[in-house]
Amino acid sequence: MVDSTTEARTPSQARTPSQARLREVRAQLVEHLHEGIMPFWTQRGVDPLYGGYLTCFDAEGQLVDEDTDKYIVTQTRMIWGFSTFHQIDPTDDRYAAYARQGVDFFIEHFWDADQGGWAWKVARDGTLLDNGKVVYGQSFAIYALATTTLATGDVRGLDYAERTFDLLQRFAVDTARGGYYENLEPDWQLSPGGFCAGDRKSLDIHMHLLEAFTVLAQVSGKEIHRRRLEEVIDAILTHMIDPKHGCGGNQYDLDFNPLPAIAIRRTFNAEREGELVAAPTDTTSYGHNIELAWLLVRAGEVLGKPRNAYEGVVRRLVDHALAYGLDRVHGGVYRDGPHDGPALVRDKEFWQNAEALVGLLDAYEITRDERYLEAFELVWSFVRRHLINHELGEWITLVNEIGEPLAAGIGSPWKACYHSGRAIHEAIRRIDLLLAVDAHMEDV
Amino acid sequence: MVDSTTEARTPSQARTPSQARLREVRAQLVEHLHEGIMPFWTQRGVDPLYGGYLTCFDAEGQLVDEDTDKYIVTQTRMIWGFSTFHQIDPTDDRYAAYARQGVDFFIEHFWDADQGGWAWKVARDGTLLDNGKVVYGQSFAIYALATTTLATGDVRGLDYAERTFDLLQRFAVDTARGGYYENLEPDWQLSPGGFCAGDRKSLDIHMHLLEAFTVLAQVSGKEIHRRRLEEVIDAILTHMIDPKHGCGGNQYDLDFNPLPAIAIRRTFNAEREGELVAAPTDTTSYGHNIELAWLLVRAGEVLGKPRNAYEGVVRRLVDHALAYGLDRVHGGVYRDGPHDGPALVRDKEFWQNAEALVGLLDAYEITRDERYLEAFELVWSFVRRHLINHELGEWITLVNEIGEPLAAGIGSPWKACYHSGRAIHEAIRRIDLLLAVDAHMEDV
Repeated sequence: MVDSTTEARTPSQARTPSQARLREVRAQLVEHLHEGIMPFWTQRGVDPLYGGYLTCFDAEGQLVDEDTDKYIVTQTRMIWGFSTFHQIDPTDDRYAAYARQGVDFFIEHFWDADQGGWAWKVARDGTLLDNGKVVYGQSFAIYALATTTLATGDVRGLDYAERTFDLLQRFAVDTARGGYYENLEPDWQLSPGGFCAGDRKSLDIHMHLLEAFTVLAQVSGKEIHRRRLEEVIDAILTHMIDPKHGCGGNQYDLDFNPLPAIAIRRTFNAEREGELVAAPTDTTSYGHNIELAWLLVRAGEVLGKPRNAYEGVVRRLVDHALAYGLDRVHGGVYRDGPHDGPALVRDKEFWQNAEALVGLLDAYEITRDERYLEAFELVWSFVRRHLINHELGEWITLVNEIGEPLAAGIGSPWKACYHSGRAIHEAIRRIDLLLAVDAHMEDV
Repeated sequence: MVDSTTEARTPSQARTPSQARLREVRAQLVEHLHEGIMPFWTQRGVDPLYGGYLTCFDAEGQLVDEDTDKYIVTQTRMIWGFSTFHQIDPTDDRYAAYARQGVDFFIEHFWDADQGGWAWKVARDGTLLDNGKVVYGQSFAIYALATTTLATGDVRGLDYAERTFDLLQRFAVDTARGGYYENLEPDWQLSPGGFCAGDRKSLDIHMHLLEAFTVLAQVSGKEIHRRRLEEVIDAILTHMIDPKHGCGGNQYDLDFNPLPAIAIRRTFNAEREGELVAAPTDTTSYGHNIELAWLLVRAGEVLGKPRNAYEGVVRRLVDHALAYGLDRVHGGVYRDGPHDGPALVRDKEFWQNAEALVGLLDAYEITRDERYLEAFELVWSFVRRHLINHELGEWITLVNEIGEPLAAGIGSPWKACYHSGRAIHEAIRRIDLLLAVDAHMEDV
């Protein structure tokens, strides 16, 4: 893709990357998607007993029998996954069917017919375990359900996505200060402060609402969905990007003043097992920042903005990750670090590296700055060597700086096919775009 | 009420006002309400042809035939009025019936069955004329409909009030910056900027949402209605009270930066006829400020706050009006003025003087500061002499500084029984409270 033996070039002097190298990476990505991720989940992901999805698989790809509770986050991500697999390969009837049965299970067991909205967790058989209304979870419901209508034509998806959107407007918005609350109770009362986070706002919630409203606006075409997408972008850009360092923040009080991060009920960081370092309290997440960058670009596309509408903020987000989060020795991106210095938590996590693949290609595509392509190569090589379990076809959870497994499980209540599958799929699309543009350039 | 011959006393030394004087004023208020306002509207206010209400009456109390279009603002205020008359005198069957037929007409002709929400204006026979979704109008729908359920038990009221609330949450909130937009199109798209005010926020809208959500929360008891009430209060107190002078502002950009006021489509000031002075662009409204003061106290009651929860802001709002808005020579309150100096528009308007009656008694009740009672006397004496048409039993619209009529009409598309009737009713309630407390003080 880039010839590392040549001397440094400014972006404007950048050579078109090698078509051959782009094609080579594309082939690797396609093989991993079609012969790894898609079969892995197709063979294991559907629960043959009760419907819905099974997502907890150990390092050998075996179902973890004692961990079959179903969480909104992974059920919706699997609906998103099979819907997207159907888009990728409509000739295989299983994908749409597997998405549809997931929607069946999700509506039957997670939907709160009395109070509206989606539960946080049910047992494998659908017995309700936690009916808390978590905005993070609701955002993934919107994302998955809008996507399933787009990809498979199942009209229930958009219907329920819109209902979920309406409930968030009714219950989750802070109408005094803007933005969205974090955690709500089963009856949509605002949760208490502290661990239940009723007194906090987070970049995480707002970023995933941005992601969800993007697809919702795309599918519905409604002005209100576009308007709310613009507003959540405004809230993020106004309050949640560090103006000095250009990276994303983490947690805030209700007035958007930054707060040291705490563990929050029903979040990945609060529920993760085998935590290997003390949770840092005032850091930025490199993968999150790069993910935000490409989600912004995608939102801008849906809103009809020029492709470079968010170029300034995208550059700052990605450049911060390149300065501090990219491991130029071993490849890959670290987990967390301070706003203004080297990485603090140097483990490498599946989802951050997955999102980095997309965001780096995306940043290259809009800026043609080769540094992003070089970084992509460094991440992709690390991912191939250390994060993908090639025998099973999926990614493991966490490795240390040099790639030794720290958590080798393939799936969990939080991990399914969403980050890995989406990253590979989105990376292929971006390479196709680059190849098409380059082919066009050769034609003229 | 106060003996003006005695020397000045500090509030803590204040004597209990004369019970005899309080009873005398109470008798005047009761007579005006029961023999003036209530019969005036009972005899004229119901449209015998089409249902709903007629509100445009000239200085002789005759229907203005060419002005029979029905506006959301006055239709809802008449629903509020007859519902409240029923509370005041449940022995007269007409009041609840007249409220109910108004609800019938309102739902049949103003409710947008396709897109939800209420139209701005229909013809006398109900033909739709303007289906714009104006937040000011929606707020009065909530206020009137929640009140009719409270007062008459008509369950449709709360049902539609809650639906309207939900629509405002879905479409009218600014989820990036907090607060509510001003004007929306028939399909709830945000209106363009400028005259259509899609780029503005106003104290007016937020104050009337506060008023509406207070009754809604009282009637429904729901946490979300209480929460949204707290939030709209937060928005007002944070952004819309001049921190230096303690008076209310007027118009703001979407980030709540004050803007010089402009005429806005579908507002009283844009539609009023016979404007006698150039519209001031950067002023505060004395009557609005005093109204806000007592609405805050009432909201605090419904939220279960201590009776003095808002005493600081109430004092500043009312003291500003006393310093600049009260005419100590002729009585009454002027219309508008700058934040930091004497009144600019010295005409005296029906609604400002009506709201001042309530707010001044209210401020006296929570502070026992006799200055407020003295001011009440000055306003009430002016109102009795110049603003009430005693022959007809209702108030005229506008007089000059010394009380000469400038607009002697009794009703208009904007004026019905809401300010006059509510002010007298609320003033009686406050005097009863003062008399009861004083009676108790004499007992112990």
